[in-house]
Amino acid sequence: MTAQALSQLLGPLGWLTGPDAAAHSRDWLDRFGVPPLGVARPKDTDEVAATVRICSEAGLAVVPQGGNTGLCGASVADREEAIILSLSRMSAIGEPHSGGGSVTVETGAILASVHEEMARRDLIFPMHLGAEGSARIGGLIGTNAGGSHAFRYGMMCDLVLGLEVVLADGTVWNGLREVQKDNAGYQLRKLFCGSEGTLGVVTRAVLRLHPAPKQRSTALVALADLPAAVAFGNHLRGEASEFLSGLEFFTDIGLGFVLRHLPDIGFPLETRAPAYVLVELTSSSRRVPLDAILEDELTWGMERGFVVDGAIAMSQAHRDKFWKLREEQPEGQRLEGAQLKHDISVPPGRIAEFVDVGSNLCAELMPGVRVNAFGHLADGNIHCNLSPPPGATDFSGMNSELGRALVALATDMGGSFAAEHGLGRAKIALAKTFRSAVERSLMSSVKDALDPGHVLNPGVLIGPRQ
Amino acid sequence: MTAQALSQLLGPLGWLTGPDAAAHSRDWLDRFGVPPLGVARPKDTDEVAATVRICSEAGLAVVPQGGNTGLCGASVADREEAIILSLSRMSAIGEPHSGGGSVTVETGAILASVHEEMARRDLIFPMHLGAEGSARIGGLIGTNAGGSHAFRYGMMCDLVLGLEVVLADGTVWNGLREVQKDNAGYQLRKLFCGSEGTLGVVTRAVLRLHPAPKQRSTALVALADLPAAVAFGNHLRGEASEFLSGLEFFTDIGLGFVLRHLPDIGFPLETRAPAYVLVELTSSSRRVPLDAILEDELTWGMERGFVVDGAIAMSQAHRDKFWKLREEQPEGQRLEGAQLKHDISVPPGRIAEFVDVGSNLCAELMPGVRVNAFGHLADGNIHCNLSPPPGATDFSGMNSELGRALVALATDMGGSFAAEHGLGRAKIALAKTFRSAVERSLMSSVKDALDPGHVLNPGVLIGPRQ
Repeated sequence: MTAQALSQLLGPLGWLTGPDAAAHSRDWLDRFGVPPLGVARPKDTDEVAATVRICSEAGLAVVPQGGNTGLCGASVADREEAIILSLSRMSAIGEPHSGGGSVTVETGAILASVHEEMARRDLIFPMHLGAEGSARIGGLIGTNAGGSHAFRYGMMCDLVLGLEVVLADGTVWNGLREVQKDNAGYQLRKLFCGSEGTLGVVTRAVLRLHPAPKQRSTALVALADLPAAVAFGNHLRGEASEFLSGLEFFTDIGLGFVLRHLPDIGFPLETRAPAYVLVELTSSSRRVPLDAILEDELTWGMERGFVVDGAIAMSQAHRDKFWKLREEQPEGQRLEGAQLKHDISVPPGRIAEFVDVGSNLCAELMPGVRVNAFGHLADGNIHCNLSPPPGATDFSGMNSELGRALVALATDMGGSFAAEHGLGRAKIALAKTFRSAVERSLMSSVKDALDPGHVLNPGVLIGPRQ
Repeated sequence: MTAQALSQLLGPLGWLTGPDAAAHSRDWLDRFGVPPLGVARPKDTDEVAATVRICSEAGLAVVPQGGNTGLCGASVADREEAIILSLSRMSAIGEPHSGGGSVTVETGAILASVHEEMARRDLIFPMHLGAEGSARIGGLIGTNAGGSHAFRYGMMCDLVLGLEVVLADGTVWNGLREVQKDNAGYQLRKLFCGSEGTLGVVTRAVLRLHPAPKQRSTALVALADLPAAVAFGNHLRGEASEFLSGLEFFTDIGLGFVLRHLPDIGFPLETRAPAYVLVELTSSSRRVPLDAILEDELTWGMERGFVVDGAIAMSQAHRDKFWKLREEQPEGQRLEGAQLKHDISVPPGRIAEFVDVGSNLCAELMPGVRVNAFGHLADGNIHCNLSPPPGATDFSGMNSELGRALVALATDMGGSFAAEHGLGRAKIALAKTFRSAVERSLMSSVKDALDPGHVLNPGVLIGPRQ
């Protein structure tokens, strides 16, 4: 009955069932997802609103799905009485607004397409992450994506000026303003960012843009250890603060995974070392001696014994190679076999301490476990992923203990166990343990206020209704 | 009875009544404020919580007050059955956390004190506005303050990593995390920013810090007209994007007010012109030729006829003088007589268009009215303040029509009529007209969810309960 109404509303392109829907029904890591009643692919905001209204009245759950590259299971259904709402047909990217400070896009647009369109106009939308070739703006807003440039340019909630959102009852909130400063009431635009589709379906967004940099300098640096990497990063922050658009780290464990399983990438330095940092400086001015600034920093690090080797990219190909070593860390580890992924943040000054103490905790629980820490040195976001001891194919049932040890440590250090991937369905249990009842209750109050029927992505972020 | 309980809880330093309370009872512009039952000045979070609990149970309104320098009447009571809650005794500023990326402060701390404490450690908390000598961190969070550096560093909600908040029933939410990336649920920290004390009383905050710049270059530039100022600002954004920490504008009308009423400041250029821009570039690197970059820009502007005169500050005294011309715009206009203050934002590329069309609309309503537009060129925030025609002492009852004409125009242009001062009590009526019922209802839902009894700052932001 409802399927019929949706089919009639959306037409054959807009309502997929059976095998056509199957590609949408499981999450990226294949851990979550019940085949839904169907997949709705509306062509405009009116159709999104009508779809949500029909589902809301019929008691069907609405699960918004972007590129379906999320890692916490927020974009697939947990019941058959659900539809997946994909905005893949709503991917228009507008012209930048006067002055080039912002652009309005439909939230089905793929991040890489936004990059390309803006690059043609000498502008950038500075959100970068591994999945940018398939992640859609709506999903990035839903998870409040961070990525590798967040330290300089902010997370998604900092990059969104205005939003259009279809609410749980199908009404449309038009908050498509084009200004950074809008204090006419609560910061609703910020609230919807990171709400993982549980408060509304974001259909259009005004994204903040920056001028394209005119030069770029990238170095791959080998460091004596992780404390040296933190010290080097901290010095860079002090001496090249405003240029720092990438400051990524990984260790020799992760490098080993990449070189073993993806040997074509190759290693461009002469010396292997315990830790590596990828530094990227960009400037809007041609007058800035970026390479010299970077060389100064390398010299500073070498004089103190922090830096043991390093190279500055001489070409775009060279630069791409450096980035690939960092970006393929997850893939290298996946190809190594079983793994436990974590998405932790700690105060940036305490990264080395976290990895040191965390590695010891893990080793106590499971001798020989391999801790592959990599991530964003400038903002303290560590993907502290584990591989079992060499030869082992799983974590001998210690998965949850290992994860909890790291999460407890990060929490004690003033950090987060869900830094940039969100809670989804995967981390509800962690949230119940590691966030206070007061905090969880505040979030439930917000959910109940905006979606009293729990129509939108039920079970995600908040957990099942009590 | 309740007064007795509060007096007993808080002691003589913590509970002020009668004349001692009077200094807290009216707002900065002396437009709002009923003498409250008393002023509570708790010494710690527990006392704040107990105070809110007592008031909540007794049906007394709690009005949080920071430095009481807000312009919209959000920090004073609208009824006698209210207390003002001042955090002036909670002003501790901690040591920066490891790595210098953040610091925890009590929210009664005065902004200028935070600046001073951080400067001693070669760090900055980059929030700057005219009232920084008296504005308190809690008030800045409550109003989601913007100021002159927001373009580069963000508004208060972008600069707050963690919060501790006393909720409407006196429970305490400890969200004092120290990381930029925390997506374990809704962005509550962002929601409390800009909530004007209506959702909770923020008692402590983790503020994001940046390294202190090592050099600074400041220019005062005279421009052919406001479109030239916008074009010049746009070019600066493209060529000196990451250095731009101040890009302020004012016009010859405002300059005239300042020079007439505050003649000691003096005018450092040779030529008067229709518009002026104050540019400040800062860099963390000594290797950047900041002055040369600024000179390039002045040359670019002169060659195109945009720039008619300009000077680069040769000393801190010189720089202070430039800033004073901008910062004393409100005071100069206040001394000129009656005025109507506005706090508008439009997309930065459309500032000149807004002022042009807005001035014509005002002139139609009131021939001879003087439009004094000044503010933040980079983010489009215009304080488009009006003075009556020379000789007139008021706006002949046209106050509201003039304001509404400007607000309607800004709204049409995708901007805001409450850019950085908030709604308070003063702009509730405007919000009802110029924001949609859907948006207002969303905000009411959030308010009712977090403060069902409307204990916290009733009447502010949302308006009286329906």
